[in-house]
Amino acid sequence: MPEIMRINMHSGFVRREPLGGEDLILGGRRLTSKIIAEEVPPACHALGRHNKLVMACGPLGGTLVSSVNRLSCGAKSPLTGGIKESNAGGVTAYMMGRLGIRALIFEDKPEKNGVWRILRISPQGAELLPADELAGLGVFEKSERLFARHGKKAGLTLIGPVAERLLSAGGITNTDPEGMPSRYNGRGGLGAVMASKGLLGIVFSAQSAPREKYADAGRFAELNREVAKLVNTTPQTAEIFRKYGTSAMMTNTNALGALPTRNFSLGNFQEFSKINAETMYETIVARGGVGEPSHACMKGCLIRCSNVYPSADGKQVLCSPMEYETLGLMGSNLDIDDLDAIARINHKCNDLGVDTIELGAALGVAMEAGVLPFGDVSAVEKALQDVADGTPFGRVLASGASVTGIVFGCLRVPAVKNQAIPAYDPRAMKGLGVTYSTSPQGADHTAGNTARAAVKHHLKDGQAACSKGAQVGAMLADSLGLCLMLGGAVKNLNLILDLVAARYGIRPDLEKLLEEARKSLQMERDFNLRAGIGPMQDQLPEFFYEEVNPSMQSAFDLSCEEMQEVLE
Amino acid sequence: MPEIMRINMHSGFVRREPLGGEDLILGGRRLTSKIIAEEVPPACHALGRHNKLVMACGPLGGTLVSSVNRLSCGAKSPLTGGIKESNAGGVTAYMMGRLGIRALIFEDKPEKNGVWRILRISPQGAELLPADELAGLGVFEKSERLFARHGKKAGLTLIGPVAERLLSAGGITNTDPEGMPSRYNGRGGLGAVMASKGLLGIVFSAQSAPREKYADAGRFAELNREVAKLVNTTPQTAEIFRKYGTSAMMTNTNALGALPTRNFSLGNFQEFSKINAETMYETIVARGGVGEPSHACMKGCLIRCSNVYPSADGKQVLCSPMEYETLGLMGSNLDIDDLDAIARINHKCNDLGVDTIELGAALGVAMEAGVLPFGDVSAVEKALQDVADGTPFGRVLASGASVTGIVFGCLRVPAVKNQAIPAYDPRAMKGLGVTYSTSPQGADHTAGNTARAAVKHHLKDGQAACSKGAQVGAMLADSLGLCLMLGGAVKNLNLILDLVAARYGIRPDLEKLLEEARKSLQMERDFNLRAGIGPMQDQLPEFFYEEVNPSMQSAFDLSCEEMQEVLE
Repeated sequence: MPEIMRINMHSGFVRREPLGGEDLILGGRRLTSKIIAEEVPPACHALGRHNKLVMACGPLGGTLVSSVNRLSCGAKSPLTGGIKESNAGGVTAYMMGRLGIRALIFEDKPEKNGVWRILRISPQGAELLPADELAGLGVFEKSERLFARHGKKAGLTLIGPVAERLLSAGGITNTDPEGMPSRYNGRGGLGAVMASKGLLGIVFSAQSAPREKYADAGRFAELNREVAKLVNTTPQTAEIFRKYGTSAMMTNTNALGALPTRNFSLGNFQEFSKINAETMYETIVARGGVGEPSHACMKGCLIRCSNVYPSADGKQVLCSPMEYETLGLMGSNLDIDDLDAIARINHKCNDLGVDTIELGAALGVAMEAGVLPFGDVSAVEKALQDVADGTPFGRVLASGASVTGIVFGCLRVPAVKNQAIPAYDPRAMKGLGVTYSTSPQGADHTAGNTARAAVKHHLKDGQAACSKGAQVGAMLADSLGLCLMLGGAVKNLNLILDLVAARYGIRPDLEKLLEEARKSLQMERDFNLRAGIGPMQDQLPEFFYEEVNPSMQSAFDLSCEEMQEVLE
Repeated sequence: MPEIMRINMHSGFVRREPLGGEDLILGGRRLTSKIIAEEVPPACHALGRHNKLVMACGPLGGTLVSSVNRLSCGAKSPLTGGIKESNAGGVTAYMMGRLGIRALIFEDKPEKNGVWRILRISPQGAELLPADELAGLGVFEKSERLFARHGKKAGLTLIGPVAERLLSAGGITNTDPEGMPSRYNGRGGLGAVMASKGLLGIVFSAQSAPREKYADAGRFAELNREVAKLVNTTPQTAEIFRKYGTSAMMTNTNALGALPTRNFSLGNFQEFSKINAETMYETIVARGGVGEPSHACMKGCLIRCSNVYPSADGKQVLCSPMEYETLGLMGSNLDIDDLDAIARINHKCNDLGVDTIELGAALGVAMEAGVLPFGDVSAVEKALQDVADGTPFGRVLASGASVTGIVFGCLRVPAVKNQAIPAYDPRAMKGLGVTYSTSPQGADHTAGNTARAAVKHHLKDGQAACSKGAQVGAMLADSLGLCLMLGGAVKNLNLILDLVAARYGIRPDLEKLLEEARKSLQMERDFNLRAGIGPMQDQLPEFFYEEVNPSMQSAFDLSCEEMQEVLE
């Protein structure tokens, strides 16, 4: 039976608590948020000893079912000041599942600052190892050294230099099946929370883990085949996502006038065709070599929406993966139309361990303030070097879009609850505007994406209801460890619950889980309220209400009252 | 009869509204907060067009009664996000009173950024004049040019380069009777609000204003003599304040372990005797020349708690005035024990138009983060040059202590509601801790100073009640335009109200005014609530609860619930 492992970073003491009965279904965001809401004092300093960092997989973590191994990380966020969950692909959730760990809870912090450790977890136990010599290194160098020490089969969870400096754009990254450390729990500064605990990384060695005995292994295999068949026969997963990945979205957003361009001044990008999914696909295929237009970020995934973007000669990996949000925030939003440049920027961000959404938005704000010019790739690369060097300018950028706006006197800051808005202009896709505004997570497209809903995205009608459904759905998926991409193929979640039943012998009820998802959202909101973040923070920045998006001729026009519908 | 003058900074339109009847008593903070609470949408961007900047004198503004010409400035604060009032000496309130203006309201903002204007007000009217050529200049250069243009008898209200950059430590400054522009509405970033309106300064030309006819001039003169007698015969005003000014406080705070030292790590300063009031007095007297140990910041003031600190040869003004808060925040808090150095730093801050409390606290945070060393005067002067040059580092500092803490990863940030804590350690003077926590103004000693209350300052007993009384008293004094120093001599405010009666023929009731003061505090809190700042923001930073102040062996220990007593 899976366990919760608590690691006290002050005493070094490790404690294990078994999960049983109904709790076997507990996982992902529902579990991280439950632990934070129950155990973290909402008013505490997010980087102080009272905060906790929680990592949880879903109830199918550790299995090879497609797209069920998302890793949720949670804490009180130093960026939003509220409760945070950010989830990622990579092998971590799988490793945790294999090691019988549903959640890791990092508590307290070391007596002294500047003392760094690594947690190594294997079937033989967990141990904190000194790691001062890794401090300050980029994520890639850290991962190479840890693989050299602990073997290539290990799974790694790491932070980079940005998080080590306690900066709010610092994320947590996880290795993919090939050992590439670029699957990010990017949002909300959770890497900074990890750093505040003196933790540089986690090494998972699961290869000698005993084979788990399922309640009904035959049934499990049969259901797994069913999932595989759905993924492989649904056009959205088997064709669009597999071929184009998340970037497939760009065609829609550009057409809708929702593609952030020049710090959310425009909603479509004149040079769109230079950076869209089709061009990226063709470039990867044409260059060949190490390039892969379709790649799995987690074990067992059949969708393979990730990719490997190669250098012009095909010999080197320029960046893996290239995703829609980064193309939007670091591409059109900065008026950069060069895929190779975006790949280099993205790769550098991955090495620094920084959220590309937050940093892209911060750069957009700095460009609007005149600190660097729009469209200037070398200025951006220089700014990234500032981030790497920890200069004041670099630190400002890596503190996020809101701090950048304050410091450089820019009023047009695309952020809600201090968290930067992802690559959907909320004036052109108003359901996302409702999600950005009302989600307890701050502006986050994954917290309730309405992009595929059957609404007129630029009109306000039905958007609040649409966002509500999407927010509950996201909570449910995030609590089951499911990749949101799976939803395109597996429309009936009972299939997933049947898999849980086949694994543990306990069949959760879907209606009950939906009810629990609603309760979890309420629990997150309650935490925020207790942290001082209330309904007044549930709104977009002023300029989205007052400036028309010229691409869609629409301003945001849902009132707070209309959006509060979501919370009922 | 006095008027309210509204200046629309978009259209340039100026409108006057007469005050009459009961409203004749309206002034100062009560008036600024009333206008903001009624007219500014609480959720608006503080630097956007919906915010308003209000300046108001008290009902005795424009008379020569001692210490009744404080100027209140108010707006939604870009620093705290809540309602703000910050008051200052200087000649502005007197000039406004002489010109028949109780309040100025600056509304909206210019169509284009970077277009600067000056408002000139004379008995002939008000006009907005182009002022682009003054942009970027220091406060001293600005004042020289404006005096050259408008005559030495003008009164000036100005902002410096920090405010022009929209940074939250940017204050508004006013000239004193000798034309020295260093009387600051320093707190809360009101200078940035002024800049957001495209307003670089106000020139008051009152010399040809007609002589006002008082309701009972003989009675007014008699009461005025009574005030003068009280000021001149009370030891606190006639001896202590007149000789030592605000710095007299340092002996108390150092003895109580409440003098912020090394970013609020200690409560007394080993080199205390090098920077205290006695040393300053003796230095000024010994140097002679332009030095003045006692100086009036406003017309008619008999307390004369201000000073002029001269260079070693007595020939130049190094700084005027030198006050307790700056000695604390830029002296002991930075481990700087050199009065001349503090004078140079203070003078430079005055030229930049920056709040020395906020910037001193920010420098303390940066020192704790290791960005510059404690006690290093030349490093501080270099940092001030960064502020002057608008480098990223300078902009971070001038954005205040909280932003500096975020950017440099320092958790020990002495601030409440993002506003830096003045020079009283709240662990050693817990009544001030309650005021810092619960005042709608953010951490502000003038919002309810309990330093002279008959309590054991390091114990929690009675502190909430003590703060409550002080907060209501401060609101009352700030609404009457009174200098808090006057309270030492004039204990019965009926004398002030008799003066108002002799001026206008209407006698306000003290009990009713006290009730109005309580209501005004509630109105400010309500504004903050509507702006999303609630009871959860009514607390000190974590480290004051968790770290013992070694000088007093006490941590802060009033719970939120105990402090909420104040709000009842």
